[in-house]
Amino acid sequence: MKKLLNDPESAVADALAGLAASRPELMVDQEHRVVTRRAGVRPGKVGLVSGGGSGHEPLHSGYVGLGMLDAACAGEVFSAPTPDRILVATRAVSAGAGVVHIVKNYTGDNLSFDMAAELAREEGIEVEKVLVDDDVAVEESTWSAGRRGTGATVVVEKVAGARAEAGGDLKAVADTARRADAMSRSFAVALRAGTVPAAGRPGFDLPEDEIEIGVGIHGEPGRRRGPLRPARALVADMLDAVLADLPETSDPVVAVVSGLGATPLLELYVVYGHVAEELARRGVAIARNLVGNYVTSLDMAGVSITLCRADAELLRLWDAPVDTPALRWG
Amino acid sequence: MKKLLNDPESAVADALAGLAASRPELMVDQEHRVVTRRAGVRPGKVGLVSGGGSGHEPLHSGYVGLGMLDAACAGEVFSAPTPDRILVATRAVSAGAGVVHIVKNYTGDNLSFDMAAELAREEGIEVEKVLVDDDVAVEESTWSAGRRGTGATVVVEKVAGARAEAGGDLKAVADTARRADAMSRSFAVALRAGTVPAAGRPGFDLPEDEIEIGVGIHGEPGRRRGPLRPARALVADMLDAVLADLPETSDPVVAVVSGLGATPLLELYVVYGHVAEELARRGVAIARNLVGNYVTSLDMAGVSITLCRADAELLRLWDAPVDTPALRWG
Repeated sequence: MKKLLNDPESAVADALAGLAASRPELMVDQEHRVVTRRAGVRPGKVGLVSGGGSGHEPLHSGYVGLGMLDAACAGEVFSAPTPDRILVATRAVSAGAGVVHIVKNYTGDNLSFDMAAELAREEGIEVEKVLVDDDVAVEESTWSAGRRGTGATVVVEKVAGARAEAGGDLKAVADTARRADAMSRSFAVALRAGTVPAAGRPGFDLPEDEIEIGVGIHGEPGRRRGPLRPARALVADMLDAVLADLPETSDPVVAVVSGLGATPLLELYVVYGHVAEELARRGVAIARNLVGNYVTSLDMAGVSITLCRADAELLRLWDAPVDTPALRWG
Repeated sequence: MKKLLNDPESAVADALAGLAASRPELMVDQEHRVVTRRAGVRPGKVGLVSGGGSGHEPLHSGYVGLGMLDAACAGEVFSAPTPDRILVATRAVSAGAGVVHIVKNYTGDNLSFDMAAELAREEGIEVEKVLVDDDVAVEESTWSAGRRGTGATVVVEKVAGARAEAGGDLKAVADTARRADAMSRSFAVALRAGTVPAAGRPGFDLPEDEIEIGVGIHGEPGRRRGPLRPARALVADMLDAVLADLPETSDPVVAVVSGLGATPLLELYVVYGHVAEELARRGVAIARNLVGNYVTSLDMAGVSITLCRADAELLRLWDAPVDTPALRWG
């Protein structure tokens, strides 16, 4: 295994130390692996917490900041954070208006966040849980009951953060997040597996001419393996899968093309070009887009495509100012 | 070779098509592979052109926009753009105040930009060339006479763009760019080679436990090969190399930790943590930092560290508003 690390055991702590050094506007609680905004949460604002296994950076710590998350909990690589740590994060961002937990749909994350929510409620903090389950590749997976949560997390965190920043109450913020999730679908392909530091070898093997179609962000199997095809054909297949399940409205979409960690931007732009071309052909307008590394899987080579049907309100929330390490505009 | 492409021959054109689809504020001239700002150049503003071989994205097209470049010329992968195309870009951004060419120090780029500058001057456009040569790994290389131009290009393009935006004249903008280059040094290591699409196989082979120390952004050999060491030790060695050659002033530095294309953010933050720790130990203050993929080498795994001694004026220019695909703030 070749990685820029000191020790697999310290990978997450060392990366968080680097984030803290890079971003003085964030606070890193190393004991609990919780990242918050140094500015804190404005009294009366709904607090937003997300988190999950590490290895998906910039998710989630890279989305902590004005107009997005108030706290991110970093578990070990591909392992859910423990409930006590999520509780610490929940307390830290509770400012009297309740806290929304944004949870990718994996069994471990669900359990941890549910337990943390229960403990927080016992302390008098209202908590609403929002599940992200956008990955259409499989109905059930080795890591989840129901669809997995992947690329849509960025969209959900962005619009929920904007709604909270604009003064939305707990129900409004949670409803906005749920609506963004309901309107989003994703699909990913892997060209090469990533390597979990503690395992020291790739999570799966792929023959030199095959790809994993519908892969999950932990390297979970997808729908099938198949030959690597030209980007144009691959994108058409991926969009078939996404659009077959995407709610049909007349709204345009927010399109996110995310590298899985080891795919260069040159290739991501090639993919995005075909996404734009293919959606135009199918009469789906793209209102906004992101092309880059947004939800990754360590050093997996591959790409995910996320579409979110966005009405005027979701677009307005998408466009609202955001200031985080990984998303910044407005 | 596993890549998200259609055909090695069309890789650059397909990526530019994707960029054009993603960024309506940019214009892509596919015939000449030139990316410009749709808004054009304000009359009387110095125009800024950079460019070089493709495969280093987001360099250079990702730095076209307000407060940075006015045009980027994309050559084939790892090949300099031809003079006629640089001339097209130079004409496009000429607004009566002259044009600065920011050129990474490689023989091919030098030749092409020099020829284009000569042709532009014949048309009455004043051109100043600024060479970027920050890589301390080797004094001479297979691709260059003198030091290679790498990570400092981002710093040079940023501060020169800000100076031009603020109304600096041709000499002032070129001098600012030259000063940023003179104040910058870089050093990179590769864990795995990248693959040029047209070649179809990795540019070099590295044993499973070795890294290339001082690698260039085209996979050119560095100082030596050596064992992969813990990130902390590797960073200390890289900083030794950079600091041995960095001008000694009392100014703080802008630090850029850039992935080379296939290195995940988790590892880049581990590296940045040690950069911060080690520079603090050596009494060098970091005033600003970037951690991400800024100057890459296709799907090479590895990292570069760039330091630029920045006085108050360079910091002010660094902080000035910028709005490009890859850098955005203010």
